[in-house]
Amino acid sequence: MMNIDINSDLGESFGPWKMGDDSAMLDIVSSANVACGFHAGDPAGILKTVKAAAERGVSIGAHVGYRDLAGFGRRNMDPTSEELIGDVIYQIGALQGLAKAAGTRVTYVKPHGALYNTIAIDARQAKDVIDAILAVDPSLVLMALAGSQLVEQARAAGLTVVAEAFADRAYTPEGNLVSRREKGSVLHDPDLIAERMVRMVKEGVIEAIDGTLTGVDAQSICVHGDSPGAVAMARRLREAFEQSGLAIRSFTAAA
Amino acid sequence: MMNIDINSDLGESFGPWKMGDDSAMLDIVSSANVACGFHAGDPAGILKTVKAAAERGVSIGAHVGYRDLAGFGRRNMDPTSEELIGDVIYQIGALQGLAKAAGTRVTYVKPHGALYNTIAIDARQAKDVIDAILAVDPSLVLMALAGSQLVEQARAAGLTVVAEAFADRAYTPEGNLVSRREKGSVLHDPDLIAERMVRMVKEGVIEAIDGTLTGVDAQSICVHGDSPGAVAMARRLREAFEQSGLAIRSFTAAA
Amino acid sequence: MMNIDINSDLGESFGPWKMGDDSAMLDIVSSANVACGFHAGDPAGILKTVKAAAERGVSIGAHVGYRDLAGFGRRNMDPTSEELIGDVIYQIGALQGLAKAAGTRVTYVKPHGALYNTIAIDARQAKDVIDAILAVDPSLVLMALAGSQLVEQARAAGLTVVAEAFADRAYTPEGNLVSRREKGSVLHDPDLIAERMVRMVKEGVIEAIDGTLTGVDAQSICVHGDSPGAVAMARRLREAFEQSGLAIRSFTAAA
Amino acid sequence: MMNIDINSDLGESFGPWKMGDDSAMLDIVSSANVACGFHAGDPAGILKTVKAAAERGVSIGAHVGYRDLAGFGRRNMDPTSEELIGDVIYQIGALQGLAKAAGTRVTYVKPHGALYNTIAIDARQAKDVIDAILAVDPSLVLMALAGSQLVEQARAAGLTVVAEAFADRAYTPEGNLVSRREKGSVLHDPDLIAERMVRMVKEGVIEAIDGTLTGVDAQSICVHGDSPGAVAMARRLREAFEQSGLAIRSFTAAA
Repeated sequence: MMNIDINSDLGESFGPWKMGDDSAMLDIVSSANVACGFHAGDPAGILKTVKAAAERGVSIGAHVGYRDLAGFGRRNMDPTSEELIGDVIYQIGALQGLAKAAGTRVTYVKPHGALYNTIAIDARQAKDVIDAILAVDPSLVLMALAGSQLVEQARAAGLTVVAEAFADRAYTPEGNLVSRREKGSVLHDPDLIAERMVRMVKEGVIEAIDGTLTGVDAQSICVHGDSPGAVAMARRLREAFEQSGLAIRSFTAAA
Repeated sequence: MMNIDINSDLGESFGPWKMGDDSAMLDIVSSANVACGFHAGDPAGILKTVKAAAERGVSIGAHVGYRDLAGFGRRNMDPTSEELIGDVIYQIGALQGLAKAAGTRVTYVKPHGALYNTIAIDARQAKDVIDAILAVDPSLVLMALAGSQLVEQARAAGLTVVAEAFADRAYTPEGNLVSRREKGSVLHDPDLIAERMVRMVKEGVIEAIDGTLTGVDAQSICVHGDSPGAVAMARRLREAFEQSGLAIRSFTAAA
Repeated sequence: MMNIDINSDLGESFGPWKMGDDSAMLDIVSSANVACGFHAGDPAGILKTVKAAAERGVSIGAHVGYRDLAGFGRRNMDPTSEELIGDVIYQIGALQGLAKAAGTRVTYVKPHGALYNTIAIDARQAKDVIDAILAVDPSLVLMALAGSQLVEQARAAGLTVVAEAFADRAYTPEGNLVSRREKGSVLHDPDLIAERMVRMVKEGVIEAIDGTLTGVDAQSICVHGDSPGAVAMARRLREAFEQSGLAIRSFTAAA
Repeated sequence: MMNIDINSDLGESFGPWKMGDDSAMLDIVSSANVACGFHAGDPAGILKTVKAAAERGVSIGAHVGYRDLAGFGRRNMDPTSEELIGDVIYQIGALQGLAKAAGTRVTYVKPHGALYNTIAIDARQAKDVIDAILAVDPSLVLMALAGSQLVEQARAAGLTVVAEAFADRAYTPEGNLVSRREKGSVLHDPDLIAERMVRMVKEGVIEAIDGTLTGVDAQSICVHGDSPGAVAMARRLREAFEQSGLAIRSFTAAA
């Protein structure tokens, strides 16, 4: 039986402000990218999410971001290497502490937002993130954009890397994401999305925006949970996988 | 040979703002209370301090505080238990991550500022801090004010507690600190301070503000490093201990 | 025709996190207590709220709070007078700038959350807030809890004060709010609430929790907008006032 | 008698952390660029600086920056126009409030750090800053880098612009600053610096790094105050101006 991982961003509430439906999403995903306090997430809220993930056997990843709460970590920034390395270690450590308190542990790292996009193409910041992970715990898996240079860079540095695809995004013939600025870049049909992802898992290909087939080598699929529609779409994807004989399972789960 | 621990608050710079002379103090103390980012300390700066401590064999404690950067954690606050437990775990975890990256580890926890003062008398917030430590790592030692109810409360909860005295503070006949609001509460003579502390370590007593002797049971002594005068006073204390045949040694050092 | 003011807390979103339905509430209230960035509110979001208020002729008040974003300004704090005065002036000034950019102006100040509760009983912090208002613009009206000592303290200091009642709260026979910790302290029946408030405006009395009548001298009524039910309750109150021949009008509106 | 303005960054302390010697610098400069809380400056500290400036008749400018306290506003960021406009208005308004409380007013705006550098070349963010100033108070003068496109852009938009030169920086033959990354970009000799600036004021030229003369049209000169050496250098500059018959006077001072 083939396995596939489904991941989603969770723990993104902050103080009195709620975001997403963590409880619903934890019934769907096998991996939870949990905010670490810099772009979102307050400790008490993160702890709740981590406990809920532990109860369901969902793997926990450190969703590290730039120190930019007002911008939700979505704005490009240029920290020095010293700053970025420190910030990433700090966030991983903080989540490790909360995970330990919840009786579980952090098994992977997925950079968030602008940091995610930047390190897919910026080798310097990518190296900072890699160095931070190596310094705090080299057994942590890095989740990276399938097809990005980061995948090779991190593997060359000794990290285990899991590449991810985005369920609701269109791909170019070269296997890259179509920019959000372009028409048709985001898909909305839950059935079509599910069908595309099943095919990707089984055959390793996605139909690109021009109708050609492109290879996408991904071990995890990112889904959103920030609206009722998004949760429903994620649920549909899970069902489709199960109906196709695919097991939803974290890449960090024991064999 | 008798041992005594000397501790000081370090890692309290933030971004471009410098505070204290960590390098000088790390040559004097055996335990470093390192800021964890909530009242002071940015990750890159904390990492530097932790590395410098590791190089000198100085023990590292998590100096956890209220989330109050502008007030330096010196303002009373009333977080809920959920909030305080989360905040303490988060800060300990973050420092553990940075310590691990520096090849060392956190061995104790010392609450900072208003949180320190509050939990010496407020059993609810004290319980929250204790519960946080127990949840993240019950082997962490708690450093607490000698003579406070916290010492007993934490021991009853299963924590190892190290009681501390303050080198430059006057004591009441009951063995408590004379309030800073009262005249004579803070001592300034380095020789007198050193002499008092040597006596406390050897005989377990301090001359109180009224001239009587009071018992103070402390395994660590807190010194300041926030001015050249403070550093000199700490250095004088260390010399006095060495001249008296006392070894400056962390309570967490291997036997 | 008698006038009554209805006020509500608005502008409380922060960055990506939304809170309340400002648009709906601005169709109901005559005064908007707008967050100033310390407990809630980012500048771009505040500016939108202020523009929307200006379009509807709703008066704008500075909803100043403690510097405690994670705690939403609901946690007691003990800033020094220097800190509190500075913080209040800063927040008022910031909102004045945004109001000016929106073609309108700030006409009153209503402290938020823990600061609101504290200055109702703590004369020192109350004086700090009063001094801050006097320093930045003595023509600003202070909105204060009806029956609190703050009303007299602020008037004695030269401020114009508007006392407010809470639509959904029970009152003691002495005219104070029943503590939220006690049973029956919060009312839920929109019709009952509307009826009580109409009576208070017309007769100056509210039926206290023990069934006796108590005098409440309030020129503004606070309603919530943080849930669909709260918005509906506020709308019901407005309708009841209009049906009773009362005009909903800001206390700062020209005669 | 010719006038020249000297400006410096002030009010950059934050909470317990001190930066610079505001008191010394206020005896030297005619314009104080005062931090507004986003990259530095807490309200109580800003208020002190503003009061001290008012006492000496020093003009007050809003030193607005990116919302990046840990990075001191020195890291590039890409806020949306909505965010940047809001942030700039908010900061100007906050300083206006504190200035009013100190019995004075804000007369100009000087962006700080990364924002300063960005808007010298990025027309979109430049427009956002210009639009913010126009929205809150079109009579505020914008201080901009002499020779940058921002000078023309802001004038075309209707703002009064004061161009500034940097006392301790080398210039290219084209009249631009030599990048800090290049050798010789920063000057250290107080006498040479003073001589160059006197010539620039009197003749409108600076000797460029290649020995040629380049025209620099500046009405203000920026000096630093972040070290005793920097303060001494600024003092030397002031003396040189006075000895050359130049009056140090803010561009916003009444004629």
